[in-house]
Amino acid sequence: MVEDIATGVLNGAVAAGARAIRWLDDRDPRGAAVVRRIFSATGRAQIVGVTGPPGAGKSTVTDMLVAEMRRRRLRVGVVAIDPSSPFTGGAILGDRVRMARHALDSGVFIRSLGTRGQAGGLSRSTHDACLILDAMGYDIVIVETVGVGQDEIDVVNLAHTTIIVGVPGLGDEVQAVKAGLMEAGEIFVINKADRDGYEATRRQYELMLHLRETSRMARTDNWPVPLLRAVASAGEGGADIVDAILAHRVALDAAGAFARRSGLREREQTLALLRDRLVRRALTTAGETVLAEVEARRIDPYSAVEKLLAHIDEEDCPS
Amino acid sequence: MVEDIATGVLNGAVAAGARAIRWLDDRDPRGAAVVRRIFSATGRAQIVGVTGPPGAGKSTVTDMLVAEMRRRRLRVGVVAIDPSSPFTGGAILGDRVRMARHALDSGVFIRSLGTRGQAGGLSRSTHDACLILDAMGYDIVIVETVGVGQDEIDVVNLAHTTIIVGVPGLGDEVQAVKAGLMEAGEIFVINKADRDGYEATRRQYELMLHLRETSRMARTDNWPVPLLRAVASAGEGGADIVDAILAHRVALDAAGAFARRSGLREREQTLALLRDRLVRRALTTAGETVLAEVEARRIDPYSAVEKLLAHIDEEDCPS
Repeated sequence: MVEDIATGVLNGAVAAGARAIRWLDDRDPRGAAVVRRIFSATGRAQIVGVTGPPGAGKSTVTDMLVAEMRRRRLRVGVVAIDPSSPFTGGAILGDRVRMARHALDSGVFIRSLGTRGQAGGLSRSTHDACLILDAMGYDIVIVETVGVGQDEIDVVNLAHTTIIVGVPGLGDEVQAVKAGLMEAGEIFVINKADRDGYEATRRQYELMLHLRETSRMARTDNWPVPLLRAVASAGEGGADIVDAILAHRVALDAAGAFARRSGLREREQTLALLRDRLVRRALTTAGETVLAEVEARRIDPYSAVEKLLAHIDEEDCPS
Repeated sequence: MVEDIATGVLNGAVAAGARAIRWLDDRDPRGAAVVRRIFSATGRAQIVGVTGPPGAGKSTVTDMLVAEMRRRRLRVGVVAIDPSSPFTGGAILGDRVRMARHALDSGVFIRSLGTRGQAGGLSRSTHDACLILDAMGYDIVIVETVGVGQDEIDVVNLAHTTIIVGVPGLGDEVQAVKAGLMEAGEIFVINKADRDGYEATRRQYELMLHLRETSRMARTDNWPVPLLRAVASAGEGGADIVDAILAHRVALDAAGAFARRSGLREREQTLALLRDRLVRRALTTAGETVLAEVEARRIDPYSAVEKLLAHIDEEDCPS
């Protein structure tokens, strides 16, 4: 079964890819087994993060990019982060609506991942989904965030290329700087550029990009960060953004940074998986007793950790 | 030294509190020692999260709440999450500006925490700062997020009471639902209510709160979620919000939920600390070699974790 799914993934079979992503998201051990089989076929896709504040139109921009990439015969996968309610557990908007438009196109694969209230779990599942799409042979994998409710920095660390989507009149533009997104972005897009306030917003972005350049905060050497204009709902601006995405890949390759970023991503994923496994090992019955004492405020978190570590050492090495 | 600082914290000394928070944020072991001494004096302060999209005016709302709480002779601490750039490491807006207004008032203590690019680290430091402010005797501790760049869900888990600040005309209001914030909020505030579009935004929120009520998604039993209006820049609406905050505390107490939420928070903090410690133990020289293999894509993350766990078991139990 695992073998069939792994072979299917390597052959680009949509059903196999969907199954593998579901296994990984569910922490089904068959997911890890698939990753082991397909890992050597990964490291080729360009991971493109699309982020920015809510209301900026990130989904519409993503859809426009997919259409433009398909026009250029690039195969594209989309991982849409769709934070479901931590209380209801269900995603409010699914991929059904978005799939419809590209339903008959085998060169597009869209998958939504819900958060289930776990920020760390989300970034882990996102990474796994990117690996699967990469192994399926998609040239570009777009990771679309919601811009609220999960760490934008996670996406920056995951992506080769980060696109920040802004919008005129979102009020206090300095907020974008506070969030550290200005330094992270490699391509800036002002969407809904037909709206009032476009020129003012553009000037703010230009000023900040200028400050950024003079303070040498950019992540990619020799990459003049483009500030692009889009009206994604009308399909305007897609070609320029795709041009910039492909140019950024060339710049990364030239600097040897494409493989380096991929490597750091796998490193982070390994550490996240390790954290998970170690904590699960620690939470035996004795561990749960200590946690219950913390909940009752009979012991503070720092002392509790010492106790938990002592338990682990005892259990690992029975004398 | 640790003893002096712990005593100072328990006596509400601002310099001692600031020192303890800095130690904890820096992972200085003296911070953990202070927490051990002061923990039994915590669990009294009501932790109030203020969140919402960028541009909603969360800082201004927070400042208004501080002023209103002081008018009622409540002592209030503020922890402002101020995501600094992951690349420059420095916060762009500090607490200096915000401190100025309340500088001569010993009943207010404001502290900014930068993210340093670590989402998990931020939520850990925020929790620690809340413990210190709690031990210092502040009645209410407001945790103000930025609304981009870190997990809003962290704040929901940290707070007894979560306030969602919205604003007219932020575009696609359904974004707030996607982020799961609608279910999390216990008090809703539409700020900048003198702006165009207030009535339309209010109707959207009312509809969503109605949907939420009928689907029983709320976290607090018997709590009719208020939807309040504010123009924080003009000081309008503060009294109603503070009334709602205090009423929510009464509702939590009546349901036995105040202590329960505090306990879950300490549990989460303990798990976060444990994760940190276990991973640090795992990353010995042998561990770093495995990580280097992952970075070079010679081994996949799942197989690497098995190798790392095997190393740990060997080292912990020398035969």
